[in-house]
Amino acid sequence: MGKCINHPDRETSYICMKHNIYLCEECLECRDPDIYCKFRPSCPIHFITKKGFDSSKEEAVKEEPVKEECIVTFEPGGKKVAVTPGTNLLEASQKADIYINASCNGKGSCGKCKLVIQSGKIDSEKTLLLSDKEKEKGYVLACQSKISEDIIVKIPEETIEKKLKAAGMGEAATKKLSGLVEKIEPIVEKIPFQLDLPTLEDTVSDLDRLKRQLKKLGYDTSKMNINIRVMRQLTESVRDDDWKVVASLLWKKCSSEIVDVSPAHDRKKSLGMAVDLGTTSIVVYIVDMADGAVLSAASGHNRQAACGDDVINRIVCSEKDGVKKLKKMAISTINNLTKQALDSTDANHKQIESIVISGNTTMTHLLLGIEAKYIRREPYIPTVSEFPIIKASEIGLKAAFYAGVFVMPGPASYVGGDIVSGVLYTGFHQFEDITLFIDIGTNGEIVLGNNEFLMTAACSAGPAFEGGGIRWGMRAEDGAIEKITLDPETFDPDYLTVENKPARGICGSGMIDLLSEMLLKKVIGQDGKFQIELNHPRFTLFNEEPAFIIESADNIDSEEDIIFTQSDIKSLILSKAAVYAGFSILLEQVGMDFSSIGQMIITGGFGQFLDIEKAITIGLLPDIERKKFKYMGNSSIAGAYMALLSNTYRQQAIAISNTMTYLDFSSNNDFMEEFTRAQFLPHTDADLFPSVHTK
Amino acid sequence: MGKCINHPDRETSYICMKHNIYLCEECLECRDPDIYCKFRPSCPIHFITKKGFDSSKEEAVKEEPVKEECIVTFEPGGKKVAVTPGTNLLEASQKADIYINASCNGKGSCGKCKLVIQSGKIDSEKTLLLSDKEKEKGYVLACQSKISEDIIVKIPEETIEKKLKAAGMGEAATKKLSGLVEKIEPIVEKIPFQLDLPTLEDTVSDLDRLKRQLKKLGYDTSKMNINIRVMRQLTESVRDDDWKVVASLLWKKCSSEIVDVSPAHDRKKSLGMAVDLGTTSIVVYIVDMADGAVLSAASGHNRQAACGDDVINRIVCSEKDGVKKLKKMAISTINNLTKQALDSTDANHKQIESIVISGNTTMTHLLLGIEAKYIRREPYIPTVSEFPIIKASEIGLKAAFYAGVFVMPGPASYVGGDIVSGVLYTGFHQFEDITLFIDIGTNGEIVLGNNEFLMTAACSAGPAFEGGGIRWGMRAEDGAIEKITLDPETFDPDYLTVENKPARGICGSGMIDLLSEMLLKKVIGQDGKFQIELNHPRFTLFNEEPAFIIESADNIDSEEDIIFTQSDIKSLILSKAAVYAGFSILLEQVGMDFSSIGQMIITGGFGQFLDIEKAITIGLLPDIERKKFKYMGNSSIAGAYMALLSNTYRQQAIAISNTMTYLDFSSNNDFMEEFTRAQFLPHTDADLFPSVHTK
Repeated sequence: MGKCINHPDRETSYICMKHNIYLCEECLECRDPDIYCKFRPSCPIHFITKKGFDSSKEEAVKEEPVKEECIVTFEPGGKKVAVTPGTNLLEASQKADIYINASCNGKGSCGKCKLVIQSGKIDSEKTLLLSDKEKEKGYVLACQSKISEDIIVKIPEETIEKKLKAAGMGEAATKKLSGLVEKIEPIVEKIPFQLDLPTLEDTVSDLDRLKRQLKKLGYDTSKMNINIRVMRQLTESVRDDDWKVVASLLWKKCSSEIVDVSPAHDRKKSLGMAVDLGTTSIVVYIVDMADGAVLSAASGHNRQAACGDDVINRIVCSEKDGVKKLKKMAISTINNLTKQALDSTDANHKQIESIVISGNTTMTHLLLGIEAKYIRREPYIPTVSEFPIIKASEIGLKAAFYAGVFVMPGPASYVGGDIVSGVLYTGFHQFEDITLFIDIGTNGEIVLGNNEFLMTAACSAGPAFEGGGIRWGMRAEDGAIEKITLDPETFDPDYLTVENKPARGICGSGMIDLLSEMLLKKVIGQDGKFQIELNHPRFTLFNEEPAFIIESADNIDSEEDIIFTQSDIKSLILSKAAVYAGFSILLEQVGMDFSSIGQMIITGGFGQFLDIEKAITIGLLPDIERKKFKYMGNSSIAGAYMALLSNTYRQQAIAISNTMTYLDFSSNNDFMEEFTRAQFLPHTDADLFPSVHTK
Repeated sequence: MGKCINHPDRETSYICMKHNIYLCEECLECRDPDIYCKFRPSCPIHFITKKGFDSSKEEAVKEEPVKEECIVTFEPGGKKVAVTPGTNLLEASQKADIYINASCNGKGSCGKCKLVIQSGKIDSEKTLLLSDKEKEKGYVLACQSKISEDIIVKIPEETIEKKLKAAGMGEAATKKLSGLVEKIEPIVEKIPFQLDLPTLEDTVSDLDRLKRQLKKLGYDTSKMNINIRVMRQLTESVRDDDWKVVASLLWKKCSSEIVDVSPAHDRKKSLGMAVDLGTTSIVVYIVDMADGAVLSAASGHNRQAACGDDVINRIVCSEKDGVKKLKKMAISTINNLTKQALDSTDANHKQIESIVISGNTTMTHLLLGIEAKYIRREPYIPTVSEFPIIKASEIGLKAAFYAGVFVMPGPASYVGGDIVSGVLYTGFHQFEDITLFIDIGTNGEIVLGNNEFLMTAACSAGPAFEGGGIRWGMRAEDGAIEKITLDPETFDPDYLTVENKPARGICGSGMIDLLSEMLLKKVIGQDGKFQIELNHPRFTLFNEEPAFIIESADNIDSEEDIIFTQSDIKSLILSKAAVYAGFSILLEQVGMDFSSIGQMIITGGFGQFLDIEKAITIGLLPDIERKKFKYMGNSSIAGAYMALLSNTYRQQAIAISNTMTYLDFSSNNDFMEEFTRAQFLPHTDADLFPSVHTK
């Protein structure tokens, strides 16, 4: 006998013969690797046996011939992983649970997954994405390098994923939410009560006794199911504290289920968890279900990022390696964040009984292990729009075994639950004023509407605003340039970085600033082309195309200058053009134009650093009255929080999703035309931007 | 890769390192040992790993010191099992999966578990239950013999469990049922239909598309849940046969659940299974859910019999060894019978989608793994009366993963679902005439009532009628004396045995015959005492008490004469007195007497061989008009069959259970008084049996 590694309060006789750890029956039953196994990924399935079992008398195990393996050591840290020859370094890093930037999901096109070989030889493909200087120093692209012998690699500063400055975190954001919902209706309701003691005159079964009391308390027991697990524990649960119990009721759409009955003296605070499941980053709130207070929060990178920056790459990866791999990555990210968030409280993950998850359609599919492949194939059909309430244990989330999970419904393949969450939080679906809502992330989802209609579309903005496809682009991590101005004369930049760390790259808000500044200071023209004829010392050439030096290598102890290339500008212009075209076409569809808009709401992880004026200057946002703009921060987590606390809001979310009419731009000629017209700074039609003076 | 041992059509890479067998993911997920493991009981949990996984580089496993073991070999057959010293022979036989008679569950009081030591020494307790002749020949009682070295034991003829002549089997019984139910409403309904093909104008999700079509077909989709498993397979299922699918809908009390969606071309005949889960024997029907035809049937001993004959012993065993052990025994019996029954059809167990199980309260609790301990403790409270629909995979039944299981509700600890089944089948709850219903098994459950009331009680008849506590008593197996008359002069018996095999003992109907004959022929008096003064050669002494020789050892190649002792008669009289007292008190409770009875229904495995006249003679049944008696055979399986086919009947079963008022006799003084008065042949009050002339 020993103590379960996941539940130190439990004695168990099941032991993992491989790692000599104990696991209780619940952990054995729950096959999710995060609960089941502490030694991923090297031991996906354990050798569990009951301690004391004698295996020596059994037949010898027939084993396959041992394959040759290479050991890869990652520095700093010294983490080791054994892989078969031919594995590439990116795969090896994933196996070692080291998450490195790999925006293009191993295609070799983003140049982000740089590693330095310290000892041993590796077989790397040729690439233009590394400078000669880098190559000399042993830099390789992880995804383009096949392992053939034991090696030691160093992860350079610029490749390590740093702390993400996620939106919706911090005291200000959570304080704003606490108390937002008045009547709390959790997904799993706790009902404490005293049962009648049985006598020879009152011999109804334990379950009938329980239901009888629930009925007296006003619950509709005719629609109540009960889990077999609970029936198996019921006998002891009701008697353990002299017939005083706490019943947990999971509310489903049209029925309820008794998911737990515990003796009253075991009662603990009931917690909830709201999750913003972003393609890039994941935010977790731990909420006290008694009063709605946000007790703690945590955020981090979605580990799926190792399979590419955007949803399409994730789907491609899920088709190649199986949905399970992506599911596991998302679940393990959430579980880690849950642990982080709980660390600052005195609570245990088993107290989490209600969970709401808000994410785009691809993210929610992959999280639940649901096939997402037809999302990227015409006619772009998701498998599920409105998800039933599921149990945390069904997908492996660290929470009470029976915790109920509400996944925000997503009306279409490219407009998902995160947008529904946003509408729910911003609340414009209840007002007469026309609102234009945009969530600027990788995709760029737009909603136009009021209390009478909701029209929605996704405009494929691409990952440029999150750093994808941009030479020095990065997320809003430590060291990212987030604000920048250029001296009108010298073009010398004056910038701020996240956490004031030495510059490591440039994030979305920085890029908008930079593009706007370059346009206004005439470093580039309205077509985005560098004014080469200026012959400025900050101009340079990279891969035979012009580029602008933001910061020289010497100043920041880097191998290379931080530059902004002609291609980067091109990518950014395509992104902003897609967003603007989206606005225009959506309005056109309902016979409106920008003047019809009562308010414009901008949300998304990106949104909170956005300089509206500069975004208008480059033609990303329309040139309308500035007071109509409203920043709403991370509306996905805020909507999830509201739905966590209130069934009214959960039902509203479903209603919002059902009301939304999705407009597909991919085959819309008007959109393509408008998209082309918008590929100019700010726009081909200068009359649309009267307040922008670039000439 | 290899083929799953349970599903030869599936390729899998999971291998059991211990037995070198392959298991598919479903088998891995389903932790029920009968599906999960083919090597019970020596390997309760497997060493499963993914083939090709290299474990050689992992740390060595710390093993406990190997315990010394003794090898027990069972003959005939040569089955071997390793046990630790100190284990008794009964436990060893259970471990070896050899089921031998052990009515008293190892208390050493029934003397049934005789084995013969062929080689090796064993440490046996002294017992009066073996004759000197037997002891000389090496006979021991398995439960009283502790193993201390390697031994070889022989299982003698009388100890091996023979084919049970189960009631409710055979063509006559099943033919009677086929067609009994007109409108078939399975627990899992199959709905074949064509989905609309998706287009860019119709991009609703796969699930919404499915629900939309179901709604068009008249289903209430607002109350429809869906399993996560189904969502994970949905994408491919709908596309595999060009959007032609068969959806499987599990009907619950107040909602439904989509439990499977398959491409139309995969469609197979949907089967149902009705199970009579008896304490002694289990009967299984395989039913075609399209027309209700009983395709095949199988019956066998409940393997729990190794833990004792009656429910009390089973509960005691479950408290000692855990409910899981008993659950496993019942499930494995059912799974074996399912296999047997399916062998004569061309169907597969995965086609079984609806299941109804009818059993007494203890049996149903143990089958589901629900604690039963308070059933035997005042005030006798069962854990569950009305069971929710559960899934076959939740308890490990061999059937479709999602098969819905309806367990017949049981109103009280000692009146269970088998009795509700009996009422449902015999149908007297719908008529005005007063019916007295008795199921004579181990317990003796009585129901009195009509369409206005149902009063029920259990009269603790004890296991005598099934052979328990009777020196040569046995179940109606091959060689059991089932009919017997005595020559008026010589007292020479003229008897019939089951299957005309050489006599091995006497079963319930034989005992009633014998008791009645002995009374009428004045071998015994009305007090049940042998008329010793007759000094008849058929009289003998056994353990210092008088006994009657039914058959001499020489005639049947046995070690000993088949006798009927004074104690046996005492047991039988106590049993019949309990039944009669039960009738009387139940009638008294509602102000009636035997003259109020319109019909008397007798059911139970025992019932079909019963000679009514003789049962009245000994005072087991009341002396009323013979035409009022009705034999109904195995009404438990018949009721289960009806509920399998019809939701109306399932709801009726619940209503019957809720209508029943349970009367507890255990603390009823009137019952005790009447019980004492009835311990006479036929009764102390001869006026109650005017047609019986014993003087």
